Amino acid sequence: MLLRRRDLDFHLFEVLDLAGLFGAARYADSDRASVAAVLDAAYALAASRFEPFAAKADAEEPRLESGRVVLPAETGLALRHYADGGFLATAFPKLLGGLGLPFIVSQACGGVFASANVSFYSYALLTQGAANLIARFGSDAQRKAFLPPMLDGRFFGTMCLSEPQAGSSLADIRTSAVPLGGGRYALSGQKMWISGGEHELGENIVHLVLARVPGAPPGVKGISLFIVPRWHLVPDAARGASNGVQLVGLNHKMGWRGHVNTALAFGDGVQCVGELLGREHHGLGYMFHMMNEARVTVGLCAVGLGYAGFMQSLDYAGTRRQGRSSSAKDPASPQVPLIQHADVRRMLLAQKVWVEGGLDLTLYCARLVDDVAAATTDAVRVRAQLLLELLTPVAKSWPSEYCLEANKLAIQIFGGAGYTRDFPVERLYRDNRLNPIHEGAYGIHGLDLLGRKVRVEQGAALRALLGEVQRTIATALPHSQLQGECRALAAALRTLAATTRKLVETAEAGDADLALANATVYLDAFGTVTVAWRWLAQAQAALVGLARGIEVSDSDRAFYAGKLTACSFFFRFDLPRAVQQLQVLARLDDLALRVPAAAL
Amino acid sequence: MLLRRRDLDFHLFEVLDLAGLFGAARYADSDRASVAAVLDAAYALAASRFEPFAAKADAEEPRLESGRVVLPAETGLALRHYADGGFLATAFPKLLGGLGLPFIVSQACGGVFASANVSFYSYALLTQGAANLIARFGSDAQRKAFLPPMLDGRFFGTMCLSEPQAGSSLADIRTSAVPLGGGRYALSGQKMWISGGEHELGENIVHLVLARVPGAPPGVKGISLFIVPRWHLVPDAARGASNGVQLVGLNHKMGWRGHVNTALAFGDGVQCVGELLGREHHGLGYMFHMMNEARVTVGLCAVGLGYAGFMQSLDYAGTRRQGRSSSAKDPASPQVPLIQHADVRRMLLAQKVWVEGGLDLTLYCARLVDDVAAATTDAVRVRAQLLLELLTPVAKSWPSEYCLEANKLAIQIFGGAGYTRDFPVERLYRDNRLNPIHEGAYGIHGLDLLGRKVRVEQGAALRALLGEVQRTIATALPHSQLQGECRALAAALRTLAATTRKLVETAEAGDADLALANATVYLDAFGTVTVAWRWLAQAQAALVGLARGIEVSDSDRAFYAGKLTACSFFFRFDLPRAVQQLQVLARLDDLALRVPAAAL
Repeated sequence: MLLRRRDLDFHLFEVLDLAGLFGAARYADSDRASVAAVLDAAYALAASRFEPFAAKADAEEPRLESGRVVLPAETGLALRHYADGGFLATAFPKLLGGLGLPFIVSQACGGVFASANVSFYSYALLTQGAANLIARFGSDAQRKAFLPPMLDGRFFGTMCLSEPQAGSSLADIRTSAVPLGGGRYALSGQKMWISGGEHELGENIVHLVLARVPGAPPGVKGISLFIVPRWHLVPDAARGASNGVQLVGLNHKMGWRGHVNTALAFGDGVQCVGELLGREHHGLGYMFHMMNEARVTVGLCAVGLGYAGFMQSLDYAGTRRQGRSSSAKDPASPQVPLIQHADVRRMLLAQKVWVEGGLDLTLYCARLVDDVAAATTDAVRVRAQLLLELLTPVAKSWPSEYCLEANKLAIQIFGGAGYTRDFPVERLYRDNRLNPIHEGAYGIHGLDLLGRKVRVEQGAALRALLGEVQRTIATALPHSQLQGECRALAAALRTLAATTRKLVETAEAGDADLALANATVYLDAFGTVTVAWRWLAQAQAALVGLARGIEVSDSDRAFYAGKLTACSFFFRFDLPRAVQQLQVLARLDDLALRVPAAAL
Repeated sequence: MLLRRRDLDFHLFEVLDLAGLFGAARYADSDRASVAAVLDAAYALAASRFEPFAAKADAEEPRLESGRVVLPAETGLALRHYADGGFLATAFPKLLGGLGLPFIVSQACGGVFASANVSFYSYALLTQGAANLIARFGSDAQRKAFLPPMLDGRFFGTMCLSEPQAGSSLADIRTSAVPLGGGRYALSGQKMWISGGEHELGENIVHLVLARVPGAPPGVKGISLFIVPRWHLVPDAARGASNGVQLVGLNHKMGWRGHVNTALAFGDGVQCVGELLGREHHGLGYMFHMMNEARVTVGLCAVGLGYAGFMQSLDYAGTRRQGRSSSAKDPASPQVPLIQHADVRRMLLAQKVWVEGGLDLTLYCARLVDDVAAATTDAVRVRAQLLLELLTPVAKSWPSEYCLEANKLAIQIFGGAGYTRDFPVERLYRDNRLNPIHEGAYGIHGLDLLGRKVRVEQGAALRALLGEVQRTIATALPHSQLQGECRALAAALRTLAATTRKLVETAEAGDADLALANATVYLDAFGTVTVAWRWLAQAQAALVGLARGIEVSDSDRAFYAGKLTACSFFFRFDLPRAVQQLQVLARLDDLALRVPAAAL
């Protein structure tokens, strides 16, 4: 079941002011009607070509036949329709063949597709990401050669970062690229965990490969980025000769099984030719530039999966009858729907606050991407970029953790039935377990947030965030109904600021290891405070919606009431946990740092 | 990888004083040597016949061939050796053909087998449970007919409670049992989620079936318990004619796939004859009597799975090299083992506190079962029984939740590799997801704890527990190193008592729905406080161990140091969360109670 349209419209138009972007020169052709048309099309396609085949793609894992990757036929069909619908190009500038819509609209569609079938959607996602990198940093010739077939869905894309000895530690990649002259390089090395690394879905696969040129400095400062097509490009032919990219093997995963994941060898016995993207030694910078969007999208996929489980369990709870209320135990009375049990409603509320809170956070970050692109002054752009950089690890990680918990609760509502493959909730749970791992594991983002992002420009990014939160509090405060939440958030913010100061001072005093020992806990707490802010913003928007008075429909009235209840729930059951974590962090706990391996 | 022997011995002999039981008349033949011999045999068998086939049994799910259930051949072989080793009968009285060892020893072995292969072990577990019911409530003739083949491993056992319309709500079961005379009844109805419901592992399957006789009162007071063999018993022949128990279908699960789970039909077209166990209408009482042990064993299985993942990730963290410390980023330096990263050690510590804390809690409850059996005075027996009743929902639920979280962290330490089926951690995670569901879902145990157990005899059980915790605090307090933990636990205990009082008063004032609205959160917090107590007991025992001075080996010194660090970790990162939850609960939050379905 898909992400709810009413809710999506609420985030886009009532909370995040998408309409405010329509005035920007860059999005001058966008309006509410064009956005609605794209969303309509996304829902129709997700419902017809994505969702119905998610279970099949899970059961029929990718396999090899005569060296070729075999996928269910519905995979290619879905992606064909996706490309034909223009979804690969939604957010690309018109100049480059795109639709020129805001990134937040592309992400809104992405949330719908992720809730329908995250495995299919991932092929598109990687292609969009790779195309985006080429669009941003490629030469005119590269754009001309690769973008049209990629945005048409004839060429697919991948990101080749990890190697067997270099997963989280990209500094240690060894793949080499030896210049052949004319901007061409001979690639050689092994890449691991490559999603969409080999398949027959299109005419070609465009691998974006991190590698080192001879004499490159060690570590991350010596990494370059290369465009490596799976098949040589030839004019007027769909597919040239093989370019020395070999499939070493398929990875068999717990979930996300509708998406092929591979180990690849470049230039092993057969020459593999790539072309440099941008400048030598700047590859990781380019990659990380794009990574913000890729990482926010991981958070969004986590939201899509969590949201789908929430919808499934909400539906089941309304129809499945079991037991009676605590105060009405007459066994002769009929059983009641699950949803009448307070504990089931508690599990639904918990899912709601995590998935709808995560959705607002990830769409907020998408909006920041648009703000950067649409900014007419440096000050506005710099501020939006700072916020985006700061929130990226949070938007990637917090939904990955809590929407997985949401999927756990969806199974729990189904009970034994949820543990079987007869219902989708167990698959959603298996799928979602990947999100805290890929695109930077949870712990890596903790180090990124606490070790780098909150320290950038003497804390300018964090100050910008605190300013945004204060602004929301100031807007919400006049609503008497939200005063408790406003006070709680302001207090949590003070605790967050104080703990951050303490940890940063510790790092600056030379004890980075102690400061960062519990960075993951910091990320968790930071995320919860941030999502509390997004819930306050939603509650405030709900009150604005309700204030429209008699013109508010009954269903909208219930919708807004749900937002207000959910906001209260988050502030009572989630936010206090973060405050408590921040208090522990401020005491600079060193247990994890000093415990000897032999004592574990 | 199996539960660690050094740790198991620590819980049994240094924390839970197993040796203190040897003086009891009932266990007069037990001594440290006999226990060690049984444990030695359990480890050898688990390592040779259980663990090596866990992955295979997961991959080769039970399937039907010509109406017969096909399992990997290693399943039957492992169980044959298990029975031959006497493990089915470890805790049964010698009079009934058992070994007469304490239940806690049987559970200790169970923890080892669960960590090796929980799917295989479950066949044994159900048989032991069914045999135990017959031993406790059966007639002499029933004991004579069923116990010898069950304890020999020729007959297997099941528990048939759930029906398609009655899962958590047992009051609603409809299976009927019509008297045929001579203590025989014709059974008729459908049963759902029956583990081990059909297979060819032995000569027969003994189903213990809940059903209603004609005219039985509605609800749980009209349920009787029947012994229903899959095949008619015939003298001097392994297997008689079919007894009208039909396999309706197999359930295909996310995990626990080495264990067959079935839907069964009784008496559908073919007469199905059962014999009454005990008295009519007392069936659920018998079942629940045994359920204490079954439920504590679910907690133990969760511990076994969590422990196996902890061991796997500890091992991997010591060998896999990736990255460098936060303060040593020279990319030319060699990569360090994962375990040198503070965040990895934090994830190992979290697993350690959850699995070793859960192990101590479940073994403590097993010890209570022995205390009940060995008691020489009513007062001692009643007190042990009260504690057991109170702690059963906790020992079932808390490890089911937190050892699943441990498995999540084990995957995280492996990173992408942990998400593949190349390593066992993803399977352990899938397996463990069942534990919060079966034998009473998490929410049911919350209602049991808060709605019944803490209110029994005006709070006598809770007072008994508080007394036990106070006793541990008094013992630990003289150790200066533990004073902080003693104070924190005493404070948490006061908060627990005050919140409980508030909730019970609310229920007694007539608002049971409000009092129980967040019973699951109460169970979670109650469990965390209880496990904090078990960690204080472990820390105190570790200090006693260390006080042996120069005779303490280096490895024991590290072992005890690990217990002390883990205790501190639990008190800093886990206990405060429970205190915060209890504070929320004391405010009688009614959000889950009053949120309308339309607002979700």
